[in-house]
Parts: sequence; structure tokens; C-alpha cells
Amino acid sequence: MLENLFLDLENSYQEMVEIRRYLHQYPELSYNEHNTAKYIYSYYEKLGIEVQANIGGNGVVAKIYGGKPGKTVALRADFDALPIQDEKDVPYKSKIPGVMHACGHDGHTATLLVLAKILEQNKKSLSGNFVLIHQHAEEVNPGGAKPMIEAGCLDGVEAIFGTHLWATLPTGTISYRVGPMMAAADGFDITIQGQGGHGAQPHKTKDSIVTASALVVNLQQIISRKVNPIESAVLTIGTFTSGSAPNIIADTATISGTVRTFNEQAQELIIEEMERIIKGTCYTANSSYTFNFEKGYPPVINHKEETEYLAQCASAIPGVTAIEGDPDLTGEDFSYYLQHVKGTFFFTGAQPDTDGPTYPHHHPKFDINEKAMLIAAKTLCSAAVQYTNAALKKPTLVAE
Amino acid sequence: MLENLFLDLENSYQEMVEIRRYLHQYPELSYNEHNTAKYIYSYYEKLGIEVQANIGGNGVVAKIYGGKPGKTVALRADFDALPIQDEKDVPYKSKIPGVMHACGHDGHTATLLVLAKILEQNKKSLSGNFVLIHQHAEEVNPGGAKPMIEAGCLDGVEAIFGTHLWATLPTGTISYRVGPMMAAADGFDITIQGQGGHGAQPHKTKDSIVTASALVVNLQQIISRKVNPIESAVLTIGTFTSGSAPNIIADTATISGTVRTFNEQAQELIIEEMERIIKGTCYTANSSYTFNFEKGYPPVINHKEETEYLAQCASAIPGVTAIEGDPDLTGEDFSYYLQHVKGTFFFTGAQPDTDGPTYPHHHPKFDINEKAMLIAAKTLCSAAVQYTNAALKKPTLVAE
Amino acid sequence: MLENLFLDLENSYQEMVEIRRYLHQYPELSYNEHNTAKYIYSYYEKLGIEVQANIGGNGVVAKIYGGKPGKTVALRADFDALPIQDEKDVPYKSKIPGVMHACGHDGHTATLLVLAKILEQNKKSLSGNFVLIHQHAEEVNPGGAKPMIEAGCLDGVEAIFGTHLWATLPTGTISYRVGPMMAAADGFDITIQGQGGHGAQPHKTKDSIVTASALVVNLQQIISRKVNPIESAVLTIGTFTSGSAPNIIADTATISGTVRTFNEQAQELIIEEMERIIKGTCYTANSSYTFNFEKGYPPVINHKEETEYLAQCASAIPGVTAIEGDPDLTGEDFSYYLQHVKGTFFFTGAQPDTDGPTYPHHHPKFDINEKAMLIAAKTLCSAAVQYTNAALKKPTLVAE
Amino acid sequence: MLENLFLDLENSYQEMVEIRRYLHQYPELSYNEHNTAKYIYSYYEKLGIEVQANIGGNGVVAKIYGGKPGKTVALRADFDALPIQDEKDVPYKSKIPGVMHACGHDGHTATLLVLAKILEQNKKSLSGNFVLIHQHAEEVNPGGAKPMIEAGCLDGVEAIFGTHLWATLPTGTISYRVGPMMAAADGFDITIQGQGGHGAQPHKTKDSIVTASALVVNLQQIISRKVNPIESAVLTIGTFTSGSAPNIIADTATISGTVRTFNEQAQELIIEEMERIIKGTCYTANSSYTFNFEKGYPPVINHKEETEYLAQCASAIPGVTAIEGDPDLTGEDFSYYLQHVKGTFFFTGAQPDTDGPTYPHHHPKFDINEKAMLIAAKTLCSAAVQYTNAALKKPTLVAE
Repeated sequence: MLENLFLDLENSYQEMVEIRRYLHQYPELSYNEHNTAKYIYSYYEKLGIEVQANIGGNGVVAKIYGGKPGKTVALRADFDALPIQDEKDVPYKSKIPGVMHACGHDGHTATLLVLAKILEQNKKSLSGNFVLIHQHAEEVNPGGAKPMIEAGCLDGVEAIFGTHLWATLPTGTISYRVGPMMAAADGFDITIQGQGGHGAQPHKTKDSIVTASALVVNLQQIISRKVNPIESAVLTIGTFTSGSAPNIIADTATISGTVRTFNEQAQELIIEEMERIIKGTCYTANSSYTFNFEKGYPPVINHKEETEYLAQCASAIPGVTAIEGDPDLTGEDFSYYLQHVKGTFFFTGAQPDTDGPTYPHHHPKFDINEKAMLIAAKTLCSAAVQYTNAALKKPTLVAE
Repeated sequence: MLENLFLDLENSYQEMVEIRRYLHQYPELSYNEHNTAKYIYSYYEKLGIEVQANIGGNGVVAKIYGGKPGKTVALRADFDALPIQDEKDVPYKSKIPGVMHACGHDGHTATLLVLAKILEQNKKSLSGNFVLIHQHAEEVNPGGAKPMIEAGCLDGVEAIFGTHLWATLPTGTISYRVGPMMAAADGFDITIQGQGGHGAQPHKTKDSIVTASALVVNLQQIISRKVNPIESAVLTIGTFTSGSAPNIIADTATISGTVRTFNEQAQELIIEEMERIIKGTCYTANSSYTFNFEKGYPPVINHKEETEYLAQCASAIPGVTAIEGDPDLTGEDFSYYLQHVKGTFFFTGAQPDTDGPTYPHHHPKFDINEKAMLIAAKTLCSAAVQYTNAALKKPTLVAE
Repeated sequence: MLENLFLDLENSYQEMVEIRRYLHQYPELSYNEHNTAKYIYSYYEKLGIEVQANIGGNGVVAKIYGGKPGKTVALRADFDALPIQDEKDVPYKSKIPGVMHACGHDGHTATLLVLAKILEQNKKSLSGNFVLIHQHAEEVNPGGAKPMIEAGCLDGVEAIFGTHLWATLPTGTISYRVGPMMAAADGFDITIQGQGGHGAQPHKTKDSIVTASALVVNLQQIISRKVNPIESAVLTIGTFTSGSAPNIIADTATISGTVRTFNEQAQELIIEEMERIIKGTCYTANSSYTFNFEKGYPPVINHKEETEYLAQCASAIPGVTAIEGDPDLTGEDFSYYLQHVKGTFFFTGAQPDTDGPTYPHHHPKFDINEKAMLIAAKTLCSAAVQYTNAALKKPTLVAE
Repeated sequence: MLENLFLDLENSYQEMVEIRRYLHQYPELSYNEHNTAKYIYSYYEKLGIEVQANIGGNGVVAKIYGGKPGKTVALRADFDALPIQDEKDVPYKSKIPGVMHACGHDGHTATLLVLAKILEQNKKSLSGNFVLIHQHAEEVNPGGAKPMIEAGCLDGVEAIFGTHLWATLPTGTISYRVGPMMAAADGFDITIQGQGGHGAQPHKTKDSIVTASALVVNLQQIISRKVNPIESAVLTIGTFTSGSAPNIIADTATISGTVRTFNEQAQELIIEEMERIIKGTCYTANSSYTFNFEKGYPPVINHKEETEYLAQCASAIPGVTAIEGDPDLTGEDFSYYLQHVKGTFFFTGAQPDTDGPTYPHHHPKFDINEKAMLIAAKTLCSAAVQYTNAALKKPTLVAE
């Protein structure tokens, strides 16, 4: 059964590439992916697959019903692009100035659309049901996952699988991990309000640059002394802006940054310690402050059983190696799905076959190895059709 | 003799006010004071006083020869304005958008012009010679004093006196000080070159914000530990700019600031320590840097004998109190004159008679008490005519 | 078979307690455990078990040969005590002033001795061979493990198991972990050489307290910015000593501390960054330094297959729960054994049954729950006799 | 008149040396100068001069009445020694182990005693009265000056003069200064109370070494940013003590230091800022603290008229050069006298005539140039006898 499905996928590989390249040329920014959503909707409509648009925004959800009873599984692909100018020299280069699929979501969409077509074509012999979640706005907080879930996209779903094409991982590799897989990614900004004055009269001022500098130094202690060393956490200050002239002491200084954690306890500890350190540092300088902390996506916490199952599914695919990967401190709103149903999120290696450098995600020259789409499709296919069929216990390439 | 001169000055007070208000309405920026220079030149020309334009730039120098032999003394007034929008609500408000006499140089000019007229009128009974130095470009480094001296404005001069109308000092007061009176005012900028990267991957970067913050903190030790505590010195960081996004670790950070000292030894010590601390801090962070230090005007160091003499001259003027003032850490290129001839620079209290706040120099609502011009004129007059007459020893209001 | 062995162990529990309490009363410091070694040697000798003393120091190694062919497995117990005054109020309180079994090594020894006796009694029905490693000097670097290995204690051994009674873990629990289990524990000391002087004349000195304080602050950046956030690492400064009088600026300042890591790469990174930060900070202060870094035990890295096997063995014991634990940043020289043969080191919960507080290891009131010795013995027994019998694959409580 | 007195002093120089050397061999610590006080008392008693002992402690006060009416002037010499072992190789080396006149008070005493003898011998021709204040306990806070004043030693006194033999100033030089001459010298200690723990578990602790280090760094900002740059002030941390072992995080850290200022406003500002910075830094670290600040002697503030008078007196002495000196940041309880009556305190250059190094005050090899005693005696003599005679205006070597 699986072998047949894989064969069908291989035969549709060219279509995957075409879809992906089309989307690559017409990228749309988060929350503005109207044409992409229409494209997806039409694809399903033409195939006669049940499909709904405008789910929680620009989200599109399709459903395929197998010929036999079984479980319901969801597969998810995101489809928004980034505000980056495409600098690649390829025929399928972005035609939209300043917008680019620099994170591979075009490939995610092409993978899921073609996989859906194959599932539809084989549905009589399949068990259970398949929910295809095409999510908008993954790149920008608060993201599309949350409203799509609130709009009911997970209703009746018993497990969910999702993947990210990963350009810095060798093609042919699937990276899985039980538990924390991607981090909570939060943002903050702090403004120190001191008191300005003449550069020659520091004693009449409250020097906001010295205070903010001391704050940056003091904040290092959160990671070095306050977070449990067996936890992973990052506190980065990305911007520091203060002052208008070399000989004027600045009234205010503003810093902003990001915090990454893998659990709420560490996240809350860091917020509490930041508040304490900011308050204490400003007290020291007789200055005041504002502190805004905006929580982003929660961490992606993969469920154990489903992750090990997925790893086994992947390992059984000819030419695919499943490896246990390290967690990544970037963020993903796939985390919301995993708060509602069991499932796992994994990376599909998509390193290009070139001799040159591999450009990382969000780089103006970013590209994927399109063959990775086929591997992603097979892995999601194997996980989905075996899951809906029966238990998780014994995934196989052979038989049902 | 002095009493007559004072009477003449009093009678010309209205002219002083008119000149000052005219100049106030037509301010010109440093190095572009062409019309002001013409105005000054014409004033002398009309009075038949020997005058030369374009001295070391826009400088104007006039000379008056007394009827009796004696010494040669110079008096100096600067005449450039500032790039500030005048926000006062007065009839003589600046008519030039964005340019303003926010430092009182209009008053300095009016004072010296009218004083020159009176000296000219009384020259037969005066001893020695009077050099009237109208200097351009005091506000902007490298300043007009240096090229005017190079052009010979001090040739034959045996002493020089100059004053600054000082709005934060009560009108009726002259503030003098032997030795350091105003500071060397230098500027610097430092750029830290680290290595940027993703905010979630600090270990792959060299965080320039953390490094520059540590540098700001480390630089505090120069004043607190390295400068002799009986010296006055300031090191201020006025700007700190780094980073483009909260979740991106910044490649570079740039800080700029000012250093104030009263002698070259302290200045050189600070430069040396800055270089050391920047180098060490960057070594610590495995980062590189550029460090530019631009020396501004040297400190104004008043000569003892001439200062005490000036103080005695001022004290002897009815209604004037001479006080020994603290040094001020702002800068003045009057310093260059004092490197060539004996002399002193003093503050003439010019606090307005209003109930409201006194606006400091360089403030958009800055104004002077015009009566201070008369006090400045009398003080300079007394110092000049007694100096040229004989010895410094015994200034008096009475007799010669 | 296992059930019989467990029954024998239960019947010998009282002996375990007696041995442990005897050893508890006569603790000996690391490298001076002569009497304890004799005690162990005699125990084996009386039972007619092959035993050798003075292995790599005070180490004792015994061997039991099963009646059937099979693999060779080693079990290890350490037996040194600590320089701590026993403050417990129990009949078996230490009789040696200032020396105490405050880490449970007495229990380790009692457990292994009695287990060995039971194995000896049942050896005819057992497969393979059992090497009983009684190690001296675990508490003090360089430790007893290394010389015992060099003396051949692992010759012919195919796997090793060891445990630590853990007072802060509930009795009845076994904590295992694949990979890093305990940290590399290194030590360092740094002396800053500045230049002293009168407290009123900082400009004539190089203030070593300010420099060392800046160093402590700067060192925080290693963990916060330089170590990969998915690694666990600690850099602690434990002592800071400088100065003789409040009004004298101190010549030198000395700090010492400890570094904990789970792999050599992180350890080397930290050493390199420390060197850089110390050098840069001292350059900044125009001061010199000495930096000594002494590597302690390497991290305990448990082998995957043997650890999962051990976990399964433990889980199968009635009344025992095996949990996957977090790594612990303390150190253990069991790490050396695992560099030579496969195996695993686990914690055996030994929390006392009291209502009062649980005292941590190395506390003057530390005590263990003696029942934990029986659990440790059963777990080691199960792991050993099944390992020597056949493959690791299917540990069981039932049958062979 | 003065010339005769100077001649008498020169003729008694040998006696000065003998007295000084005797005292040098029998130094006594502050508050224990019983024998020295007796020695002084006896000297006056033998000469028939009115003298009182036990003034405010071990203080001795003598009075000489001139033959003509005039003002009353006081001269002061201190006579306590230091807890330092004399390491000089001279015949008059200290015979008291661990006690030494390492600050020149023996010389002060010899100078004043012999000067008093000469005044007594010439009293008929002198105007006014002379109060000779021999003060105990200058070296140790709270000092002898305060209780001696409270005991009435300044009753009726119109001006006071005092000097310190200064080994680092060339012999033949008198250093005077109007206004601040010596600093307020205060002490403080700060204890940070954090929370200790295992070096591998920083997240369970409040690391007092990191907090105290941050505090040392933060305290630098008081001098660099908070004290008016035209003020002189010093804040030195002299000791930093924390921790018992490299791998244990320390509960507490203690630092101590000294603060030097020249006026109460700066002193109070520093105390206030210290309190703020300590509180803020500890808040940042969630730790508590104790802060003790003990004010020492107030600054020595010389009165203008009396100082200039003294300088003129000194200048007029053949072979003596009076220079305006920098203020010194060490302390002196002569400050208390100047809070009650007009006067001045000056340094008498006493640099030895040797080729070798000049040892600073409080050094085990400290010595003075004994010839400086004669210069000090002449200067005090000139100031005193002219002051009591008439006005301050015109000191002279010639005539009355």
C-alpha cells in the first residue's frame, strides 16, 4: 500500500516542483496571503476535495475521507512569505519586489497539495480521515495557528504532523526530537528615563547611556547565574539607541531584544529576573523605566509516542535517515497545535546540491533542495496513512 | 579720565542695544558670517578707524592709536551664531530660520564696537594702542582664533582681555579666575566591530552591544581611578547606536562622546587610558574597533597678574562685584590668544531681569540682560586704558 | 533465578546494615582508607573469593566466576569519606573526629559486599564472570578510578555498572539517563597583579580590586553569550580575596572557582574564553595575572544501550520505579570506567523516612535510607546476572 | 625684633634635634602618650611657663604672656606615634617595638617646645599672648583636637597656626593653600548578604561575589558621574573578602574602603549615592546588605586672610620659598581648630638630604630632615609675633 503511494508521489514530483516555483514567484506577506489562499482553495476545488477558506483568517482547510473507518489525522503546511528582496539568480525568482519565500513555506505548500491529491486518488483503500491544514501567517506573531484552531481546524483530529524543510540539514535526513524541539520566542523593549544635560556637567544629570550599559551588563547574570544550567535559554539585546550629540548627556536610552526558552517556568523566571534587574539598576541610577515584554509563540514540545512513531516511519523509507536532533532556539506556532492534540514537528533536510555556500533561512539567497519535498511528502504520507489505519505501534513499509 | 569714558559709554548704551538687536535678527552660522563681518567693517570705516577685513577668514581687526605712548592691548569679541531656531517672543527675534544668536556673541560685538567708538573719541588723552579683534567662528572647531593669530592679529599686542556675557550669572557680577577658566573640549567616536547573527545563537556571534556596554562601564574608571583627584576632568558618552532588530545580534556598535580637561597632561592621560581600555575590552570580546579622538580648543588658562588686575579693575567700577568663579568645563578658543600673550578671559553676569526661568546658553529661548553689555564695556575699558597707560599694579577709578 | 537472588539479598539486608554502620563509624579520608580496604579484603578472603588489594592505591578487586560461560561484567563501589564533622545523633555516628561518610560510600560498599556474597553463593547457576571493584579516593582529584584502571581492574570486562545512593531522590526510585549524567568538574584560580598605594591616590595605582571585580562581571558573558545555549555549563567564582586595610589600594586580588561542563568541546571553549577575558581585562587595567586551570574528572557519559537496559532491569523489580533523570553538574570519576568499557552510572533514591528535612550530600547531618541499599543491590544484581548470561535485549524478572 | 628671635632659634637648633631624637626613641601610640605628655609638661614647668596637663585627654596647653597688649594666637603640635616597626638604621631609632614616629610628630613637638622657650625668653618685647597646644591622638579618629577644644584650649584665641613636616616636599619650602588643604577622610564597610550553595547550582543561590563585584564596578560612577568635576573626591575600596572554597557559592561578601572629600556637600552626596547604589545593586540581586559609614575628620579649610598672611611671613624668611600647593587628600584633625577660629595649616618641606629614596609618611624607613624644624619654628614664630602685635596686613622681617 505505502509503496504504491510513494510511487504515485514520485510520479507527481514534477507537479510539486511546478507548484512550488509558481508560489515562489508570487510570495505574499503574512496576513496578506490572499492570492496564495485562493490558489490553494482552487487546487482542492478542482480535485473535488472538501475545502473551506478563510479559516481563522486566510487559512484553508481541506478534508479527505478514507474508504475504511479509522482515526483522523491532520497535516499542516504554512504558506506566508517574508519581507526580503530575492537575490537569487534563478528562473523562478520572486516577482514581487521586497517579498520572498525565504523560509521554504512554498515548498511546504506544494508538498501538502500534491500529497493530498495522491491521498484523494487512493482514498478508497485508506482508513480514517485526513485533515489538510494550510496555515497563513506563521512568520509574524500572533500567527495563524491560534485563530485556525479557534475556528475549529482541529475538531475531531486525533494527531497532527508537520515538517519544516531545513536548508542547513543534509537532504535525505529527517531530524526528530522528543520534547522541546523549538523555543518560545519572546520580545521585549526597555526605555531608561534619566535626565539629560551638558556633556561637561554629568553631576547635574542622570546619564541614561551609562545606566542602560550597566543594565546590559547586569542582564547577563540571568543566563549565567539564575537559569538552571540544565535548561537552555537565551537573552539577547538586539538594539541599543541613545543620544543625539557627542557632547550632550542623553535623557533616555532604549534597548530591545529577544528571550528564548523551552518551558514556561524558565520563561517566567527570566521575566521576573529582568523586572528585578531593570528596577534595581534604575534605582541605582535614580532613574525610571518602562519595560514591555511580549510573549511570542510557546515552545514546540513534541509528544513522545508520536515522535518515536514518526522517526520509525521515516527510517523505514528507502533513502531516508532519521536522526535525533538538537532543539532549535527559533520559534514556530506549530506549538499551538501540539497543545491541543498529540503529534510531532520535524525537520526535513533540504540542503541544496550546489558546491557553493548553503544560505540559511531568511537569507536573500536562500533556496531549498526541491527533492526534499518528495521526502517530506513520503514521511508525512507514511505517518498519516499508518496512523489512521490502526495503532502507532508498528509502522512498516510493507502490508496492512 | 575713566569716569569720563564710563559716562560716554552710558550715553551710548542705546546704540549698543540697537546694534545688538540688529545683529540678533540677522545671525549667521560659523564660517558664514559674511554680512556680520561687513557690518563690523563698515562701522569702523565710517568712524575713520583703521580696520582690516578677512583676517584669517571672516575676522575683522581694527586699531586705535592713543595720543600718548604706552603699551598695546587687544580686546576680543566673537560674532558667529548657532544652528538653533529662535523661539523667543521678542521684536528682535531672529529673522533667519534655524539660526540664532543663542550664545550672546551679538552682545559681545555690540559692546566692543561701541567701546571702540568711545576710545576713538577720546584717543588723544589715551596712552598706547588698542587692537579690536572681532573673531568669527568661535562655536565650531577649529575656530577663528587660530587663523586670526596666524594672520597676525596679535602682532605687537602685549596683553589681551575678553569676556563672555553669561546668562546664568547675576547681572552686576564679574566672574574671574586665575589659571584654568574653561576646559579643553575634545570629541571622540568609537566603533566596535563584532560579528552579528541570529538572536537565538549568541555562541556564533561577537555581541557588539554587550561589548560596547562593557566599554561604557569600563571607561568610568578613567575619571574614578586614573585622573589625579585634584584635577577636574570629564569623560561623557553622548551617543550609543547599535542594532536593527530585537532578535538579531548586532555586528557593530558606535559610541561618541566628549572629554574635558584643564591641562594637556590630563588630556593625554585620558587619551592613553581610553586607547588601553578600548583595546582591552575589545580583546576580551575578540572584536576589533576604530577610535577617533579629535582635540578641540585647548583650555583657557588665565594669567595670574592680568587676572588679578582685571578683578581689581572690575571691583572698582561702581555697581560691579568681582567674584572668584569656579572653572567651567565648556570650551572657548580664546585659549589660543592666551597661549601667545598675557591676558585673561572673564564672565560678565547677564542674567535677565525676568521672573521666569533663566534659559541657559544654546537654548532656543536664550536671551541676555542687555545692561550687562554696559558693564562688560566698562570693565574692558578700565582694563584697557589703565593697562596701556602704565603698569598693571594699581588700577583705579580715579586719576592717572 | 533472579527471584531467588533477590530473596537471598533480602535475607542478608541486616548484614548490609551492619556493615554500613560499622564503616560509618570508622570513616577514612581519601587516599588514607587503609583500614577500610583491609576490611573489604578480609570480607572476600573469608568467603574464599579471589581478591587483590592495593590495586592502583588502596583499591580492592574481587572476582567471581559463574558456573556457565558468559560475559564479564564489573560492578563498582567507592569507599572513601569526607573531612566533615558528623553532627547526626545516631548510634552509628562517626567515631573519627572531623571525618564522616557524608556521601554514602559506606552504603555503596556494604551493598556491593553483600551482593558479592550472594553471587558467590549462587555462582554455579550463574553465567559469565563478575568483577567487584572497590574503589578508593573518589572524592579527591585525581581520584582512584584512573590508577585502578591502569592497574588492570577492567581487563576482560565487557560492561560496568555503578550507582550512587542519592538522599534527595525518593527511596524506591532509580534515576537513569542516556548520555551526559554528571559533569566535568574543574577548578581554577586567578591572581591579578596591580599596583598598590594610598587610598587617597588612586591615580598612582592599578587598583586590583576594581580589576578583579570587572573580571568577575566580564566572566559572566562566557555562559550568557559564548556557550551554545543547548549545552549545560557553569562557571562559578567561589572566593575573592584582596586587600589589607580600607584606606590602602591593594596590590593583588585573587579569585578561585569551578567550571562544570558535559563535553570536552564546551570545556575547552570555556578555558579559551577565560584566558581571553582575563587577558583583556588585565590589559584594560594595565595589570598582569596568573591563571591556573586544573581539569578534574571528565563528565560521566552513559552508554545508550546499557543505560536503557539498566532502566528496564530496574523497572522490572517489584517496588522500584525507573525515571529518566536530569543530568547533575556534580562530578564522579566513574567517568573513567565509561571511557574504557560500555556501561552506565545511575542514582538510587535514598531519601530518609523522616519527617524532618532531608540533608544534602556533604552536609554534617547527611544520612541515607538504608533500605535503598537493598534496591541498589537488586538493581545491580539484575543488570549483572542477565548481562553475563546473554544479550542485553530482554531483561526480565522471570526465567532464563 | 624677628631677626633676634630667628637668631635665638638658630642657637637652639641643637636642642630641637636632641628633643626630637629623644622623642623618636620613645614613641607612644595614640591615646597612650602618657610619658610624652609628661615630658612636655615638665619642659614648660622647668621654664616656669604656665602649663596644664590632661586637657581633653593627654593634651598639654601652655601659655606665654607678652609684655605689651595684643592679640592672642595659638600654635599647635601633635605628639602621638604609629603602630609601625622602625626599620631605620640610625642611633635615634625607636626603642619601642612596633611603635614609631613615622609621621614627624616628634619634630612638631620639638619645634614648638623650643619656639616656646624662645618666646618666653623674649616675652617682654612681645605683644599679646601665645597659646601652645600640644595635642595627643592625631592619628586615630576621633582624635585629640576635638576634646581639647571642648576642654577650652581655644578660649580667647583669635587665630591659630599649625604645620606638618612633609618629607616629600623639598626642605626650604613652605606649601600653603587658601581653602581646602587636606581632605575629610571617612571609612566605610559593606556586607552583601546573598545565599550560598553548591558551585554547580547557581540558580539556587544569590551569588554574593558577583553582587559585590557589580557593586564595586557601580560605585565607580559616583566619582565619574555624580560628583561635580570641579570638586576633588576619592572613593576607594581597600578590601574585598568572600568565600571559603572554589566550588561553593559564597553567602556573604564584605568590602571596605575610604572616602575623601573637601566639603560636606560632596561628602553627603557621596554617602547618599553610595546608599542608593548599594540598595539598587542588592535589589538587582535579590540580596540584602549592611552599610556602615564612619565620618572621620572634616577637611582642613584654611582661612584666606590668615593663609595669605602666613605665606607672606614665610616668603620673607631668608632661605625659605613659599609655594601655593595642591590640596592633599589625606586627613588631619587640625580641621576642628579652623572651625572655631581663623587660621591656617601648612606643610614645611622636610625632605632628607640623602641620595637614596625619600620614604613617605607612615613608611618603616620614614625620616625627616631635621633642619626643617628650624624653618617651621621661624615661620610659626614670624606669623605669631607679628599677628599678636598688630594687624595681618603687612608682615615683614624688619622693624615694628
